[in-house]
Amino acid sequence: MGSLLRLPSLLAPAAARPAALLRHRGRCLHTSPARLCPAATTAGASSAAPVKMESRGGDREGQVTPRSTDFNAWYTDVIAAAELADYGPVRGTMVIRPYGYAIWEAIQDYLNVKFKETGHSNMYFPQFIPYSFIEKEASHVQGFSPELAVVTIGGGKELEEKLVVRPTSETIVNHMFTKWIQSYRDLPLMINQWANVTRWEMRTKPFIRTLEFLWQEGHTAHATLEEAEKEAMQMIDVYTKFAYEQAAIPVIPGRKSRVETFAGADRTYTIEAMMGDKKALQAGTSHNLGQNFSRAFETQFMDENGQLEHVWQTSWAISTRFVGGIIMTHGDDAGLMLPPRIAPIQVVIVPIWKKGDEKGVVMEAVASVQNTLKEAGIRVKVDDSELRTPGWKFNFYEMKGVPIRIELGPRDVKNRSVVLSRRDVPGKQGKEFGISMEPSILVDHIKDRLEEIQASLLQKAITFRDSNIVDVNSYGELKEVISEGKWARGPWSASDADELKVKEETSATIRCFPFDQPEGAKKCFMTGNPADEVAIFAKSY
Amino acid sequence: MGSLLRLPSLLAPAAARPAALLRHRGRCLHTSPARLCPAATTAGASSAAPVKMESRGGDREGQVTPRSTDFNAWYTDVIAAAELADYGPVRGTMVIRPYGYAIWEAIQDYLNVKFKETGHSNMYFPQFIPYSFIEKEASHVQGFSPELAVVTIGGGKELEEKLVVRPTSETIVNHMFTKWIQSYRDLPLMINQWANVTRWEMRTKPFIRTLEFLWQEGHTAHATLEEAEKEAMQMIDVYTKFAYEQAAIPVIPGRKSRVETFAGADRTYTIEAMMGDKKALQAGTSHNLGQNFSRAFETQFMDENGQLEHVWQTSWAISTRFVGGIIMTHGDDAGLMLPPRIAPIQVVIVPIWKKGDEKGVVMEAVASVQNTLKEAGIRVKVDDSELRTPGWKFNFYEMKGVPIRIELGPRDVKNRSVVLSRRDVPGKQGKEFGISMEPSILVDHIKDRLEEIQASLLQKAITFRDSNIVDVNSYGELKEVISEGKWARGPWSASDADELKVKEETSATIRCFPFDQPEGAKKCFMTGNPADEVAIFAKSY
Repeated sequence: MGSLLRLPSLLAPAAARPAALLRHRGRCLHTSPARLCPAATTAGASSAAPVKMESRGGDREGQVTPRSTDFNAWYTDVIAAAELADYGPVRGTMVIRPYGYAIWEAIQDYLNVKFKETGHSNMYFPQFIPYSFIEKEASHVQGFSPELAVVTIGGGKELEEKLVVRPTSETIVNHMFTKWIQSYRDLPLMINQWANVTRWEMRTKPFIRTLEFLWQEGHTAHATLEEAEKEAMQMIDVYTKFAYEQAAIPVIPGRKSRVETFAGADRTYTIEAMMGDKKALQAGTSHNLGQNFSRAFETQFMDENGQLEHVWQTSWAISTRFVGGIIMTHGDDAGLMLPPRIAPIQVVIVPIWKKGDEKGVVMEAVASVQNTLKEAGIRVKVDDSELRTPGWKFNFYEMKGVPIRIELGPRDVKNRSVVLSRRDVPGKQGKEFGISMEPSILVDHIKDRLEEIQASLLQKAITFRDSNIVDVNSYGELKEVISEGKWARGPWSASDADELKVKEETSATIRCFPFDQPEGAKKCFMTGNPADEVAIFAKSY
Repeated sequence: MGSLLRLPSLLAPAAARPAALLRHRGRCLHTSPARLCPAATTAGASSAAPVKMESRGGDREGQVTPRSTDFNAWYTDVIAAAELADYGPVRGTMVIRPYGYAIWEAIQDYLNVKFKETGHSNMYFPQFIPYSFIEKEASHVQGFSPELAVVTIGGGKELEEKLVVRPTSETIVNHMFTKWIQSYRDLPLMINQWANVTRWEMRTKPFIRTLEFLWQEGHTAHATLEEAEKEAMQMIDVYTKFAYEQAAIPVIPGRKSRVETFAGADRTYTIEAMMGDKKALQAGTSHNLGQNFSRAFETQFMDENGQLEHVWQTSWAISTRFVGGIIMTHGDDAGLMLPPRIAPIQVVIVPIWKKGDEKGVVMEAVASVQNTLKEAGIRVKVDDSELRTPGWKFNFYEMKGVPIRIELGPRDVKNRSVVLSRRDVPGKQGKEFGISMEPSILVDHIKDRLEEIQASLLQKAITFRDSNIVDVNSYGELKEVISEGKWARGPWSASDADELKVKEETSATIRCFPFDQPEGAKKCFMTGNPADEVAIFAKSY
């Protein structure tokens, strides 16, 4: 039933690929009015008088550039059609729309619990940082000064000292830590903040790189290097688990090369994700800052022997960029595909009726199924709008990546059963007919399916990742692998200069030295010298 | 036991009123190192080697200026001693520390659910607004232009158009609404964002008025004036219920005078709270914006008859200022006093033992009580630090406003009972001995007490409020009431000029025309003309 209803609308000439057209109009990710109004408006719309289906079907149709044709165009099309984000009025800024924000909220909800479980407290630092602070840590200012937004006027007056809009908060955090920390008894100090940050990026891309973005930044201070190292590793572990278990993204955790280390850190740990176009996305980082900031800001404590020492620190962050990672890992030609655990809507129910007298019984059954699922803790939405055909809704919620669709018509009501469609399995194969409405059976069935979808998305991503990482033993091999768009993994102990040469010649960078290392003796593929580790090279976002 | 242990430390000369001293040192709300490290550090501290109690007792003691002596000094002292906030490095900015932030999180958790229940979706708008946007709505630019922070440099270059750091988001919201709204079917559009905002205030005060603060701002668009009015009223109702039921603050909801209406609104509704010094605090506002912004930004929709109309809008906000309102409503000389429903810690357990062999049995019982309460959904904290005496802890958690303290010593273990102390009832009267540890009994008992404390705080605040609002029938009476520091309520139908004259001569402003109005004919106390309503006048923050 679903696939039959779906074909005509996908082929409808009226659709005219509006999303794709839009990219040529500069800032506007969309034009068609109706596509832009998220869940919030559904209630209002459905209470309005019904209008002819055809007149609305055409302009709202969210057809997107096929992923295989143009991955970048597909990405921005999906963001528009699934109503995830829109461009802000200032170049490079982004409005996160309710559906995109709900994904971010799911990320926050999970991580917030984990951060607290691991002993961190949330707090909030001001976003305006005196310019002089940024200059205190040498490599930090070098890394961030080209990207700063600067406030020079406040309350109508030129400011004496310019203020930086935070690009990250290490400097102001250390300024405060210096006031708060005196003794070893004040350590460890472990905090986190959820905040907006600003980096004046030249080439922007929704979610992936925007002038302003949302993130969490953890900051900790410890009495010893060992404790700081343990904390930095703990947090990259938290991120790795989140990526695998919630977002179904099989990231590769590892250590950044010196060249790619955070400006101000001794060591940067990263989780690297392979996107659908095989480019790498740095999806989260955790830094062992050593004593770099504590020396710059004189953050000292009296140790147990009465000696004054500088604290050892970490910082770690995940941002709204992760939403982009989810889109580019799981999406397909039909749009977004969301892992059930972070999907704002896990199940959408589409009621189907033709004759007026069918509506009552169908809607009664729909309400009952909705309640059953809701009470079982499943995030369920009913789309009972009469402005749209069931076929249109099927497409729309596929575009939005909702893991499971329930179709419910008069015949289903008679049989006390429903029809299920899995977002991740296209066509007939993804459909199940005659699933009992009996609450206990239905709930168990749907919970099983959600888990299956979650596992299946992860497995698919692992298979894709592993089939696109190639071991190399010479620079020639690396060049070939990179030119095929794949990731190259090979032993590396060459210089920073060699690393920059690879970047210049192939556009690939060292994504990380993965924690998971092959056994045995290795020789650097570039120099032939002994190498302790393999590195992964790839082009990246 | 508590009061006995408490007296010596309160009188200890070693304390030297550090918090009070600090106010004279400019930016620093505190110096004593140990006071500055919140819950996050307790774990670390408690695992460290024990040190002499005396050496730590003195410097951490949080003595504050008595409330009756100097309310403002008391307020900043409590903020420092209860570890709620600290000053940021930029004048007028504030760092919200973990304990203060946890109160804000409790506010967020409650309101976030209510906003969603009433049909709003969260989203996020960029904070940088083109300067030209602010100028589009005439009264808006007049209201906000003196308070703007302006970004003039981005990525090392002078910007072509200056960017305003949002003081509020009506302009950028309307810019986006204009793109998203075309038809009556797109309405209502109801969204909210949790964000930071910046207003370049000259006279700042922690939580109450800071350069940057955190808030939520709701923005909605409707097809009719009636719907917008209904929404504006609905949201002031949500705020009122929150204030009464969660924060135990008996706010007075009402309408602002024309003079006090938000820059860009047709009508502003407000909740006005009476602080402990009887000054009024505007604790939340909800605006009926009419078509002011939709006309300025051409936000139009096609109505059901095919007519193009401007949308009708609302906006509404509550900010971190509310945390200041909670402090100033309930606090006393011993510090903060938190309503149980928003208290980050509802129950603190202080273990007490003298001989080493007592520790084991006491800590076992403490762990069991902690688990019992935790499982019952009560927010409980154990302070088992050996660096502090029980007496010090009693004072500290009173300062932090924790509603209930449980004391548990060897004799209590033997009797299978605990000692309870209520924060809101000082001395012996607030103590209960021999409360059974039996889980079901203890949990019921504590839940009852928490509800009692919640109700009692509200009742106390209502009594205080009502005994300090005086009905007036002449300008002379008003002047007298205001000079006594109280609120004056009287019939008012005079001009804006008269209102400004009252402000100039008495420093009091119209806080609101309360929704709750006395019956019968009224005569304006200023002009003698007929008046429809009474207004409430007061000095305010």
